[in-house]
Amino acid sequence: MFPDDDHIDDHLREECGVFGVFGCLAASKLCFLGLYALQHRGQEGAGIVSSDRSTFYVVRDEGLVSDVFNPENLAYLKGDSAIGHVRYSTTGSNNVNNIQPLYAKTSFGKLAVAHNGNLTNAYSIYSKLKTQGALFQSTIDSEVVLHMVSRSTETSFLKALQTSLSQIDGAFSMVFLCEDKLVAARDTFGFRPLVLGRLGKGFVVASETCALDLIGATYEREIEPGEIVIITAAEGVQSYKIPRQSRRAFCVFEHVYFSRADSVVFGDSVHLVRKEFGKVLAKEYPVEADLVMSIPDSGNSAALGYAEASGIPYEIGMTRNQYVGRTFIQPQQQIRDLGVKIKLNPITSVLKGKRVIVIDDSLVRGTTSKQRVSAIRKAGAKEIHMLISSPPITDPCHFGIDTPHRDKLIAAQKSIEEIRKHIGADSLGYLSIEGMLSAVKTHLPEHFCTGCFTGNYPLKVRNKGKHSFEGEKIKLYGKKN
Amino acid sequence: MFPDDDHIDDHLREECGVFGVFGCLAASKLCFLGLYALQHRGQEGAGIVSSDRSTFYVVRDEGLVSDVFNPENLAYLKGDSAIGHVRYSTTGSNNVNNIQPLYAKTSFGKLAVAHNGNLTNAYSIYSKLKTQGALFQSTIDSEVVLHMVSRSTETSFLKALQTSLSQIDGAFSMVFLCEDKLVAARDTFGFRPLVLGRLGKGFVVASETCALDLIGATYEREIEPGEIVIITAAEGVQSYKIPRQSRRAFCVFEHVYFSRADSVVFGDSVHLVRKEFGKVLAKEYPVEADLVMSIPDSGNSAALGYAEASGIPYEIGMTRNQYVGRTFIQPQQQIRDLGVKIKLNPITSVLKGKRVIVIDDSLVRGTTSKQRVSAIRKAGAKEIHMLISSPPITDPCHFGIDTPHRDKLIAAQKSIEEIRKHIGADSLGYLSIEGMLSAVKTHLPEHFCTGCFTGNYPLKVRNKGKHSFEGEKIKLYGKKN
Amino acid sequence: MFPDDDHIDDHLREECGVFGVFGCLAASKLCFLGLYALQHRGQEGAGIVSSDRSTFYVVRDEGLVSDVFNPENLAYLKGDSAIGHVRYSTTGSNNVNNIQPLYAKTSFGKLAVAHNGNLTNAYSIYSKLKTQGALFQSTIDSEVVLHMVSRSTETSFLKALQTSLSQIDGAFSMVFLCEDKLVAARDTFGFRPLVLGRLGKGFVVASETCALDLIGATYEREIEPGEIVIITAAEGVQSYKIPRQSRRAFCVFEHVYFSRADSVVFGDSVHLVRKEFGKVLAKEYPVEADLVMSIPDSGNSAALGYAEASGIPYEIGMTRNQYVGRTFIQPQQQIRDLGVKIKLNPITSVLKGKRVIVIDDSLVRGTTSKQRVSAIRKAGAKEIHMLISSPPITDPCHFGIDTPHRDKLIAAQKSIEEIRKHIGADSLGYLSIEGMLSAVKTHLPEHFCTGCFTGNYPLKVRNKGKHSFEGEKIKLYGKKN
Amino acid sequence: MFPDDDHIDDHLREECGVFGVFGCLAASKLCFLGLYALQHRGQEGAGIVSSDRSTFYVVRDEGLVSDVFNPENLAYLKGDSAIGHVRYSTTGSNNVNNIQPLYAKTSFGKLAVAHNGNLTNAYSIYSKLKTQGALFQSTIDSEVVLHMVSRSTETSFLKALQTSLSQIDGAFSMVFLCEDKLVAARDTFGFRPLVLGRLGKGFVVASETCALDLIGATYEREIEPGEIVIITAAEGVQSYKIPRQSRRAFCVFEHVYFSRADSVVFGDSVHLVRKEFGKVLAKEYPVEADLVMSIPDSGNSAALGYAEASGIPYEIGMTRNQYVGRTFIQPQQQIRDLGVKIKLNPITSVLKGKRVIVIDDSLVRGTTSKQRVSAIRKAGAKEIHMLISSPPITDPCHFGIDTPHRDKLIAAQKSIEEIRKHIGADSLGYLSIEGMLSAVKTHLPEHFCTGCFTGNYPLKVRNKGKHSFEGEKIKLYGKKN
Repeated sequence: MFPDDDHIDDHLREECGVFGVFGCLAASKLCFLGLYALQHRGQEGAGIVSSDRSTFYVVRDEGLVSDVFNPENLAYLKGDSAIGHVRYSTTGSNNVNNIQPLYAKTSFGKLAVAHNGNLTNAYSIYSKLKTQGALFQSTIDSEVVLHMVSRSTETSFLKALQTSLSQIDGAFSMVFLCEDKLVAARDTFGFRPLVLGRLGKGFVVASETCALDLIGATYEREIEPGEIVIITAAEGVQSYKIPRQSRRAFCVFEHVYFSRADSVVFGDSVHLVRKEFGKVLAKEYPVEADLVMSIPDSGNSAALGYAEASGIPYEIGMTRNQYVGRTFIQPQQQIRDLGVKIKLNPITSVLKGKRVIVIDDSLVRGTTSKQRVSAIRKAGAKEIHMLISSPPITDPCHFGIDTPHRDKLIAAQKSIEEIRKHIGADSLGYLSIEGMLSAVKTHLPEHFCTGCFTGNYPLKVRNKGKHSFEGEKIKLYGKKN
Repeated sequence: MFPDDDHIDDHLREECGVFGVFGCLAASKLCFLGLYALQHRGQEGAGIVSSDRSTFYVVRDEGLVSDVFNPENLAYLKGDSAIGHVRYSTTGSNNVNNIQPLYAKTSFGKLAVAHNGNLTNAYSIYSKLKTQGALFQSTIDSEVVLHMVSRSTETSFLKALQTSLSQIDGAFSMVFLCEDKLVAARDTFGFRPLVLGRLGKGFVVASETCALDLIGATYEREIEPGEIVIITAAEGVQSYKIPRQSRRAFCVFEHVYFSRADSVVFGDSVHLVRKEFGKVLAKEYPVEADLVMSIPDSGNSAALGYAEASGIPYEIGMTRNQYVGRTFIQPQQQIRDLGVKIKLNPITSVLKGKRVIVIDDSLVRGTTSKQRVSAIRKAGAKEIHMLISSPPITDPCHFGIDTPHRDKLIAAQKSIEEIRKHIGADSLGYLSIEGMLSAVKTHLPEHFCTGCFTGNYPLKVRNKGKHSFEGEKIKLYGKKN
Repeated sequence: MFPDDDHIDDHLREECGVFGVFGCLAASKLCFLGLYALQHRGQEGAGIVSSDRSTFYVVRDEGLVSDVFNPENLAYLKGDSAIGHVRYSTTGSNNVNNIQPLYAKTSFGKLAVAHNGNLTNAYSIYSKLKTQGALFQSTIDSEVVLHMVSRSTETSFLKALQTSLSQIDGAFSMVFLCEDKLVAARDTFGFRPLVLGRLGKGFVVASETCALDLIGATYEREIEPGEIVIITAAEGVQSYKIPRQSRRAFCVFEHVYFSRADSVVFGDSVHLVRKEFGKVLAKEYPVEADLVMSIPDSGNSAALGYAEASGIPYEIGMTRNQYVGRTFIQPQQQIRDLGVKIKLNPITSVLKGKRVIVIDDSLVRGTTSKQRVSAIRKAGAKEIHMLISSPPITDPCHFGIDTPHRDKLIAAQKSIEEIRKHIGADSLGYLSIEGMLSAVKTHLPEHFCTGCFTGNYPLKVRNKGKHSFEGEKIKLYGKKN
Repeated sequence: MFPDDDHIDDHLREECGVFGVFGCLAASKLCFLGLYALQHRGQEGAGIVSSDRSTFYVVRDEGLVSDVFNPENLAYLKGDSAIGHVRYSTTGSNNVNNIQPLYAKTSFGKLAVAHNGNLTNAYSIYSKLKTQGALFQSTIDSEVVLHMVSRSTETSFLKALQTSLSQIDGAFSMVFLCEDKLVAARDTFGFRPLVLGRLGKGFVVASETCALDLIGATYEREIEPGEIVIITAAEGVQSYKIPRQSRRAFCVFEHVYFSRADSVVFGDSVHLVRKEFGKVLAKEYPVEADLVMSIPDSGNSAALGYAEASGIPYEIGMTRNQYVGRTFIQPQQQIRDLGVKIKLNPITSVLKGKRVIVIDDSLVRGTTSKQRVSAIRKAGAKEIHMLISSPPITDPCHFGIDTPHRDKLIAAQKSIEEIRKHIGADSLGYLSIEGMLSAVKTHLPEHFCTGCFTGNYPLKVRNKGKHSFEGEKIKLYGKKN
């Protein structure tokens, strides 16, 4: 995308998506497709490790899934099992070394891992291991898990894994590849989603159900919080526990923005949850207007819900350039400000002279909202009522989302009225926390983590932050440097 | 996209988009942005020729606009005027030589041209010119225009152009770059759109208004059918005529599918015309159903119109993978049939047990409709009513659209009932020709060409077809070979 | 090579090498090999046009032969006949448009041409043709020939060619590809070499015999000055004349530097002629010394001749880094001056305390000689006697060699004693013109052009120079821009 | 080079070259130049790790030095110290993971290593370390050294290194980069060369002196067998010992073929040693002949020596195509056998009717000698006497040279008379072992390893061979896969 991406897309970023397949012909191709469907969870890098039971094959690089993989390197990835990863990363720590899956030859044989989440005590474990002589290659928190397992005095891999994972704090939905098995594990809080599916006689693990849909796999169930699933040729799926207690803390932002609308996440249809957000918003913020429009595409579901609940007609007030992708080059400093326009163009014939309700899914820094309100106004809208289908974001996430510094979180700095003025809308409303949680059906409101809206985290965080690891940097030159 | 593209996108293809800018700093960057906004009109190749009044600079290649251009080659394209082109082309004739703009040193100095449309008597002119010793480089019909102008015995460029263009049959919206001027010309039928805009003290010409919007240019007016516009530094815009009579014949398919919903084409908002298609369709085909959904994104406007007119709720029944682009590689033959799924995924929670009206903009070969109906059915829809917001396509276009052979046009081969069975829908309806033309406001119904729906063409066609030129092929190796 | 190439290689540059093959399986692969063997005649760009009798296939790009061609594009170049070209060009006029072979559809069908030499009246012909409406694509002088042939009123291709070539002044060794024949033509002066060979039942034409050797073709004979050879399937080789009289004027610099030592050129072994240069030099400049060394590899033959004639031992005083190629990047301004060293390293153990005769083939600007003398001195040589196995270069070439401006020709600016001081040698000697011409056996001394040493040209030159053409530039973006 | 390289270059392959620089501006550029000069020691991959005292920067890739590095990635390699490596590797084990320098964060901070040689007990150390939980990334023997140092219970880095290196068997000339120092170490046998130089106030370490020459560094001395040199900003060069006893065993093949002729290796000028090989050969194998020629360029020095000692004239009987490089593509199976010709072309005018002595440096499989004898014969030579300036190669090397399997070593399979017949020469002679060792001046004959000629190794070898490591393969996709 843009060098300065915030100017066209002001969203929080997920850090990863994971996928695994076991016991299927052309495993790496299925894995490629799974990652393709999970591309929205990470656009900075992608990797697959496959196994033909004796050799591991590795392809990892910076870029989109369709840039990293090609028929030649997919053919190189032999075998009937594979795990894959898509990665989002802030610029600072970007580095080919840090593209997952990680892999090594360990005391339990070859082992690879793909991880979605963030380990909050990884740095202290890392420091201890290094003192003991462990060699570290990356600055990824997940690398400590490989060391812990390899150095474990337990004699079985399962035991080594249980012991290691019980000592790790934070969020992890992980997929491991061993020479003869696929292993999936999810932290006891259940921060990040992870689902299990079947494809013929084989098995599939993925961050979201949309990845199962694409390859024609059937959805079996969620991997439970605190569960370790081991899949082998001989015994199929076997389930174990991470020996540790905690409350549940599903990330509600998966419903707000991260997950794809066509996925089922934490048991609920993402689209229907978002539509319900819109309906609740219509009750919380009734506005007299001529039309309801969304900021496409992430605001579509909620806008439709708002229109349905309010009776105000749903309209297409902006269209999206379907060719805008990561590769867009902003050609020159002086032709700036086209940031918003390159992606979204308002339709004057729809907006002229109208009182408009604009639904957006979230508002992080406020950078693009201002430009969008201005564009809609220039297209002739008489009144602009901006409604956000989630609460104000005031606090950082420590569990796998890359939140900007509090200084840049507009709702941590300004009152709602100040934000309204800043973006230039005639009115501004946010969905309430209670309203948001009321929209979810399968789980109880208290089973969700709302840390980024409230500062109340389900776990005390000792880690200094994402980059504390990088004190002793080794930087590997990559495509994007 | 897919090697066998029809499996994910069964649409007619436009052959080109053109853009020109005169008297603006960083002309080539503006031209790049203009082409970026016109990308939907041609994805196979792109080119820009710029002029600094003494030298012409050329960049042309196969691929998307964002693939062809980069900061380095945009910097190479010096000067304050430039013309550009995006090209669609069927595989057979693809060839780097055939990427526009064409250019040459002529008796009137350096001259470049970008052309949208199709010249139906180009082959006979070509044959005559070649016998006279003219050297031909490409198999593009537009090359004859350069020769005709250069060999003209007229002493002024305008006269040479007027004489040449009056002898050419067919569709052309052309932009010429001379050392000291920009020239835009449109055939007397007005088949393809062409608009004039202003940017500061400079001028812009483009196939659609969305390209003006992106660079912040203001829309002035359409270039009229039969008009030649000459833009110079000294005298600004001057208007002349092509000395030839004909009726008007605007291409209605620009409203059906080609143009972007946010453009104003032939004086009407494309989105509103499409919405009106949906409203008329609701009158022509009332159906009892639980929801109206579109095949995104091209069916969105009409679906909204249908919902509004019928009172049946508009829903999002399918989502679009926003990362699907030209570069997708189908990894393996056996994992086929994911064609449709890679682009669109149905939302089970919306469709389950529902009677569904599905609105699509057109139906060409019927290949993807069948797969989509099947996918919607698998997602649990109880009834599927497919409504097409345009009439059945029965005949080829000779004026700049690449229609498949009549054998592959499903409506030329089968009755509507047979098509319904083929695609597996519970009912199938098409918008009538009268209904379609009633949706357009600015021009009279009889001012449109409906040749692809009726076989009635505004002009007798002598040319054998797009490839008649290629009897004497010279094929230049390019990226995609 | 180096951005500033003169610092490692101070030589005159040939502008081209040509190759053609007719009636052989895998013609384009043979053509590739032929160009590979002729790489020393042009390193800036390369191209092949092949014909399968109905279609022409074209691959042309900037770079070395091994960069431009690959198995994929060689497979693209179908057919049993092909012509190819390697190009040297000064930076100024470098441009993808100018890479040969040129090709067009003409009144005689498809036609391509590859040209070694320089046409001295091309600009006036070009101007006239352009006024008549001809479209020009390149700034290559050779393009006029295609136009002249295509516009000829003669009814046979042979007649058209004879008439056209008789009107052209200057140097040309040309290979033409038609749909059904290969044609080779050489100007009446015979400036540039051109030889005919046989390969099985097919025929081969090349600038030098080393290209025949590589593909295993047998050397038949030179194409004679003023000869047109037409090769067809039906009639094999047929010989015709260009109807024009002139004296012979073989380029003696082919023996001095351009041609490969293993080629036979103008009937003589290049190695033996160069060795003879050394022997004559030993007579003209006897020196008392401990050893004779060459600047490798171009001075090797003459140094051996000098050693043989003088009885002073031949030694290897410098070695050549065999990995130095075009792609070397000079990493940083401050680490400059390694120019000479990157290519050649003196051997201290050989040179220490010795009186050394250094033989170089020519001395153009004097830039590298100075550095080399200095490097040899630093390695411990007591005396350095630099002997050049050709006369001082004082005048420009108009017949296909890129000579630097007279200001930069050191022998046009300084006396021999001044040059000696400039380069820092203890003595300096040049081979005399008579001595040089006495070394050639097959042709008479007066049959050679010695223009660059004497300013006496065999032809009055009306053209302003290489770039006169480029008044009306169209510049096509290429790899190296 | 060629897919099947043996057909154009039948030589043993060195496995590596190393280079290090400390305390110099633009350290990575100097390192790049050093590797450029050492390119002949490894053409498969190259890498540099630089340090700015706080961060390590890494660039590694497959290919030649000039392919791997470019101005952009050299700029990325910040800092005033750097180490680099060029790698040769057989196809089987090629793998991006295996490109050096290796690096990791260790208990002594960041550490990188570049290694020339082969560790013969690495596999048993590796197995033990893995059982203890160490994670392995590569299949390079050198990785064990990083683990041993990091896990050492010694408190100083020097002690940890001394202990670790004393436990390692085999050949190693290693350069280590730490955050604040450069370390060079050489095994107690001294198999591979390693020299120390000065550049301004900084220090340089390199496999050969030619790398010092290129960057203008002055040669100080060899790193002694069994020496550890530590270079810091505060204390400059400090020398320590590896606590282990052994005899000296310099690799004589460095003089036969590996090192560059312009290098000083083990104290002797390589060119002069090779020339002496030729002189001894003239005594051991006097032949009546008309001329002495070499297989260029590796046979040049010995051929000159033979000519000098015998009084038979030295001639250039073959020329080398200076553009043959790694990138040559053999275009088609049927145009095979041009293997030899693409690189070397005989000069008929020199060879016709002559009795020829041909000097080659070594004869490994005999594949190319046969083709060369045949080519010289076709060029007209009356008698061909092939003399090899080294003894017959009969045994594998375990100390850093990639010898083909004994089945392919022609001298292990056939008598000299059989080899003569095989290659088609009129006579064949090899230099004797005593003759070879007599040519070396600085060290005693018994201080050399002659294992590949005799099977007598200075060390018992327990390792199964180069690939024993690769039992548990992890293969990383790279450029050349």
